[in-house]
Amino acid sequence: MGFTHRTMVFSKPVYIQSSGTAVGPKEGAGPLKGSFDYVYDDLWCGEKSWELAERALMKTAINQCLKKRHKSIDTIDLFIAGDLNNQTTVSSYVARDLQLPYIGTYSACATSIEALILGSIWINGLLADHVLTAASSHYGVCEKQFRFPTEFAVQKSESAQLTVTGAGSVLLSKKRSQIQVTEATIGRVIDFGLLDANQLGAAMAPAAAETTVAHLSKTNKHVSDYDLILTGDLSKTGSEIYRKLLREHGHYLSKGYEDCGVMIYGTEQKAFAGGSGAGCSASVVFGHVFNQIIAGELNRVLVIATGALLSSITVNQKQSIPAIAHAIAFERRDFS
Amino acid sequence: MGFTHRTMVFSKPVYIQSSGTAVGPKEGAGPLKGSFDYVYDDLWCGEKSWELAERALMKTAINQCLKKRHKSIDTIDLFIAGDLNNQTTVSSYVARDLQLPYIGTYSACATSIEALILGSIWINGLLADHVLTAASSHYGVCEKQFRFPTEFAVQKSESAQLTVTGAGSVLLSKKRSQIQVTEATIGRVIDFGLLDANQLGAAMAPAAAETTVAHLSKTNKHVSDYDLILTGDLSKTGSEIYRKLLREHGHYLSKGYEDCGVMIYGTEQKAFAGGSGAGCSASVVFGHVFNQIIAGELNRVLVIATGALLSSITVNQKQSIPAIAHAIAFERRDFS
Repeated sequence: MGFTHRTMVFSKPVYIQSSGTAVGPKEGAGPLKGSFDYVYDDLWCGEKSWELAERALMKTAINQCLKKRHKSIDTIDLFIAGDLNNQTTVSSYVARDLQLPYIGTYSACATSIEALILGSIWINGLLADHVLTAASSHYGVCEKQFRFPTEFAVQKSESAQLTVTGAGSVLLSKKRSQIQVTEATIGRVIDFGLLDANQLGAAMAPAAAETTVAHLSKTNKHVSDYDLILTGDLSKTGSEIYRKLLREHGHYLSKGYEDCGVMIYGTEQKAFAGGSGAGCSASVVFGHVFNQIIAGELNRVLVIATGALLSSITVNQKQSIPAIAHAIAFERRDFS
Repeated sequence: MGFTHRTMVFSKPVYIQSSGTAVGPKEGAGPLKGSFDYVYDDLWCGEKSWELAERALMKTAINQCLKKRHKSIDTIDLFIAGDLNNQTTVSSYVARDLQLPYIGTYSACATSIEALILGSIWINGLLADHVLTAASSHYGVCEKQFRFPTEFAVQKSESAQLTVTGAGSVLLSKKRSQIQVTEATIGRVIDFGLLDANQLGAAMAPAAAETTVAHLSKTNKHVSDYDLILTGDLSKTGSEIYRKLLREHGHYLSKGYEDCGVMIYGTEQKAFAGGSGAGCSASVVFGHVFNQIIAGELNRVLVIATGALLSSITVNQKQSIPAIAHAIAFERRDFS
């Protein structure tokens, strides 16, 4: 292991064996529609509540992930997951149904990458042969829980983000594959004192920049060492702030920079500043981005997943919005 | 590492360098009063909301922990924490104030031990020199969030548990000390279909038994190999079920068995079936139990922290209550 502190360069191999994604109808009609493994044609996913719908989403992403490698559940040592429901109940119920040893995680919309980093540590430390990770979010759950019941028809501001209905799952092991997990940096919680829950991109951009700068510094890399630098869900507003903050540190992002929240919806889809939610980076990275790595279109990717660590209670109590960002690097391997 | 699956026997040393606890007035008046590092004399902890009071509790536990070893915050590589607030916001705000790299965890009242297991994996894997962990709960936060506003004066049943106002923090490193972390078992989510949130002890007992049996089996140990087997917060009702379930597996618990939820309040304290909450096992284990190990009164302790993975939404939607239990073993070391 190269560093004893927040950045880890994995000394033992950690590979992505498989991944699976499942999304709702809006995401399935967007620019990345060809990349998702499963698209639900309605937001209820055949269930009676948003919470049950999100469970179905996460399970479908996991099933798609396992199916690709013909892996049965009893070959897996550990399940690491999280979601945005109060007390992360979607992940807990899915863990119950999987009957796997379970580690519950939470870092808001950065949860997918927190789980993947923890899984990588397990594989790198030879503590498990196969680790399954998952993260999800659902528009209906989040609107109800963090904002207003949709029936109120409260107007959104242009800087607001739309919670992605989506889930992503990854199967990790030390067995060689085309995608290797090579580095990771654990985020610190950054709070610039913003109070407006319609400005989450702006609240998260400083955390994303801080983690990116730390990762580049600790690994002695430049932004140009990666074919793609991808933030989680800063969306349009936050992405511009992120670019500016990196420039202040001497890092100039050009066409090799994208944001999952911007990528997931088309401009005609009325998605305000873009997508957010733990399912946003999960469904974009574990689908579209992994496909591009496997196809040889990308060789080195740095993902900086971002999370706004608020709750409806902290917002109502006028607490500022702290944010976190975790980074993970993927590299293409060709063993043919 | 002895096992590649859910049970880990740490091959490289992991030691408890220090621990700190802080509790509310009721806990501070109970049978363990001499063991806590800090007792608040009112439930508000000098703050204006229950949520801010819980933040103060967690910070005080951390300060007490660091103070004992004269450790400054900048020698610490990682902070791992969790709590019962929606979106674990208490931990996130404390992480913001500490400015440490942060991993957010959640497994309800088993969070203290989930965080400690993750920290042990970091130290065992030589990924960090010092890891700080913390967990907390607050009576006011939990009553409001999971049950009813206290002003409603809803009657509690005798099987109900009282949320502990308390926090515990641990500092881990590889440096030799009197308490070594030797083994851990990750819990699976068990759900016996119970629907009554006043019967959490009963809902959690099967998970506690499942983890205990798995841990003993994987480590080739018997209950008599430990001076103390300690469950998290099964309380009176759940403890009896746990004893019975272990008997069915051929394990007979005698006087070397206790439950943190039973220990923390005196019978005269009107605490119904006993204490619960992420701060329950944290304040009992990281205070009283560690003190007993250091004093040489206990040599080998197995803690099975228990968590009920419900939310107010899952209860209202009539979902059954899944539960989890994580186990960790401590052994006394004498280097004098």
